[in-house]
Amino acid sequence: MARWQPDAPGRLAAAALDLFEEHGYENTTVIEIAERAGLTKSTFFRHFRDKREVLFGENALTGLLVEAIAAAPPSAGPLEAVAHALDVLGSEFFAGDRRGFSARRQAVLDANPELREREARKRIGLVDSMVEALERRGVPGRTAKVAAKLGGLAWEIAHDEWIGTSGEDFASLVREVLAEVREVSAAG
Amino acid sequence: MARWQPDAPGRLAAAALDLFEEHGYENTTVIEIAERAGLTKSTFFRHFRDKREVLFGENALTGLLVEAIAAAPPSAGPLEAVAHALDVLGSEFFAGDRRGFSARRQAVLDANPELREREARKRIGLVDSMVEALERRGVPGRTAKVAAKLGGLAWEIAHDEWIGTSGEDFASLVREVLAEVREVSAAG
Repeated sequence: MARWQPDAPGRLAAAALDLFEEHGYENTTVIEIAERAGLTKSTFFRHFRDKREVLFGENALTGLLVEAIAAAPPSAGPLEAVAHALDVLGSEFFAGDRRGFSARRQAVLDANPELREREARKRIGLVDSMVEALERRGVPGRTAKVAAKLGGLAWEIAHDEWIGTSGEDFASLVREVLAEVREVSAAG
Repeated sequence: MARWQPDAPGRLAAAALDLFEEHGYENTTVIEIAERAGLTKSTFFRHFRDKREVLFGENALTGLLVEAIAAAPPSAGPLEAVAHALDVLGSEFFAGDRRGFSARRQAVLDANPELREREARKRIGLVDSMVEALERRGVPGRTAKVAAKLGGLAWEIAHDEWIGTSGEDFASLVREVLAEVREVSAAG
């Protein structure tokens, strides 16, 4: 019987990131990742389908966003519900102590077309989940799509700036980008 | 010496779409696509790097968008320049006679993860090109990103609705979505 390993996914992701930086994504094997993390290959496959998945978590983000949208006050408009979810993301996930890891992770992704495509597909899936969560609040289809995609847009730009040199926290950057969306779209 | 073939890329794309619908993307070869189009394998590879590329054109879209953004009136704000480019796209590319093809193409893409990822990556590339085109108009970095991504958002939603049953033209749908962006972001 397998022993429970504290934070195995996190340790595997950290080991993978080290190895991808040292030897490149293509030249790193699952066995090497597991060894570096002090875990076994079968523990790796209990958490991730393949090497490509190891930097993409275990869908924790989807649940977090969907719950936060559901938990937004009933009076909140669609974009306010999305912004609330991104606030939660900022405090639970993109907190200050994770910034270095996120910046290194993004550099590895940017250098690898296969990982960039995985990232693009993941983002589409997250936006789709937000659309469904908004529809469950009674937001009509096209409005839900617009609000969720605006959330995705703010997330992408804020994340890029957050891992850069600004030093601002993720949630504040999201709010700034949404303010810019308001200005740009009002100006037409 | 190869003879010039009128609209070889278009004929190859049409043949590929037929075959992907009939036998599936995985079960279709480049040779079969070329044969169905009445062309040779070497003509195929003159236009597309591999099977995966055949439904993604020859980057005609990028040039069209970049030129249209550059050609927008100097007084046009960033989002107006982007909307102008999407108008051109609507008349040059997503015209009524192309709707059936676009709907069939999208169904094939939606059914195939590899093609969906290619599509996602292509969209990112197009948005990046719009960002650069806006920056050449003097639009500052973050504003250019927001305006280009709003264009991408409007494009995606309008395209989905256009290939559906609405019967409205692409450019009008884009304007409607941008109006919805204005409303949703103003409501906060």
